[in-house]
Parts: sequence; structure tokens; C-alpha cells
Amino acid sequence: VFDRIDHVGVAVDDLDAALELYRDRLGMREQHRETVGEFGVEAVLLEVGEGHVELLEPTSEDSAVGRFLARNGPGMHHVAYQTADIDAALGQARDAGLRLIDESPRTGIRGSRVAFLHPQATGSVLTELVEPAH
Amino acid sequence: VFDRIDHVGVAVDDLDAALELYRDRLGMREQHRETVGEFGVEAVLLEVGEGHVELLEPTSEDSAVGRFLARNGPGMHHVAYQTADIDAALGQARDAGLRLIDESPRTGIRGSRVAFLHPQATGSVLTELVEPAH
Repeated sequence: VFDRIDHVGVAVDDLDAALELYRDRLGMREQHRETVGEFGVEAVLLEVGEGHVELLEPTSEDSAVGRFLARNGPGMHHVAYQTADIDAALGQARDAGLRLIDESPRTGIRGSRVAFLHPQATGSVLTELVEPAH
Repeated sequence: VFDRIDHVGVAVDDLDAALELYRDRLGMREQHRETVGEFGVEAVLLEVGEGHVELLEPTSEDSAVGRFLARNGPGMHHVAYQTADIDAALGQARDAGLRLIDESPRTGIRGSRVAFLHPQATGSVLTELVEPAH
């Protein structure tokens, strides 16, 4: 049901410093930059083959990423799996008894449809399902 | 220089419970299981397209993953990028001034050559380079 690792989400407190690392030192191409209102973040996607590193700087302390940073500091925030049918994937997770954060998909970066599973159901790994925009 | 996200490494304290989650509930195929002596872990690779989730249960408390679990509990441990030439990738990281854990590659799972960058150089994201066995 999952086609690939879509991205790894990384919480950062300084997007420009993180870009300097990933783009200029590690040599990943900057592909997209967007303020994602639904999640209260400014995000940059860096290209790694067909997948991405997603850098996330909160636009508000009260966002999920803002609270994560306050609690944990910068670091890996979530992993996202790409699916062609997020409704089916979410239904499968629900049927398997997994606790969900999002009962139905929300709008994520680049018009994708996304939903998060609850980390208490996934070994403390915040897990996102992503259906890209068509 | 990076061809894809090779895997996301997840620290677990119960490999069988984690397998039940990823294989039986999320529907990922179990592809490989190996005790990796160099790293003091029993590891399982689950298939996600051309990438993997790598579940890691320490075989000793004194391993890096054992210490991670004691400090942080279960969760995302590292992200690994695949490269066709780890010597070149490691040289590029060194030339960019990034602090390395491994000055030269070690032998990882399935005979791969792997090297870790220091998380202090990568925004607290433990970052692995992987050249698969040929």
C-alpha cells in the first residue's frame, strides 16, 4: 500500500542554517519552499531521488513542530510514506486498530493529502501518510 | 550524490512487537533479518518501494542503539541515504567541514558499506551514508 518513503521531516529552529547544511554541504537540490498554514510551518523540500528531506521551521510556538522543538530541540520529527490512495491506506490503518491523529486527510505541502498516525500506535515514530496532488 | 532515502532506522525494545506493527498492521513485507555484530543490533528490513524501514533491537546495552534506547526510549534513530560511491560521498562531507563519526566506511547490514556523520554536524539528525553491496 506504500509506494516509497516520501520524506523524512526534520524540525529546525533556523531554516536558513539548515538549508546551508543540506543544500550547500550535502549537495541536495532545493525543490520547493512553502508556508503550510494548516500545520504552522515554513517548509523546504530537498530532493533525494524520488523522495525528500522536509525541513520544518514553525511559524508559531503553538504549532505541533513548535511544541516539538520546545520539548526535544531540533531533530527528526516524522517519517512519511507515499500512497496512491490515502483513503484506502488510512482505512487499512484504522481497520488494523491503529490510533490515528487524523481521521480524514488534511491538505499538506504542494496540495498533497496527508494524515498522521498517532505515535503511541507506532512505537513513538510519528508516521505520516501522503497522497501527492495529481 | 545521494540516489535515494535508503532507510529510516527505528530503535525498538521488542523486535517482534515492532514486526507485528510494521508487517502485520501496516502491511510492509519483511525482507531481511540479520544480527549485525559491528553495531550490536538485531535488525529487520521491511520493504517500502526501493527503500526500507530498518528496525533495530540492541543485542547489548552498551551498543549505540542500546544507549539511545536507555536515554530516549523507542523511536526514530537515524536516516540513511544511498550512494553508489560512499568514498566520494564521505570525502564530500569531509571537504564540506562536516564532523564524521566514521572516517572510513564500516560493514553494515547485507554486506553494505556504511558511514555515519556526527549528529552535531547535522542538526541532531543522525545521518548514515550507505553503499549497497554489489
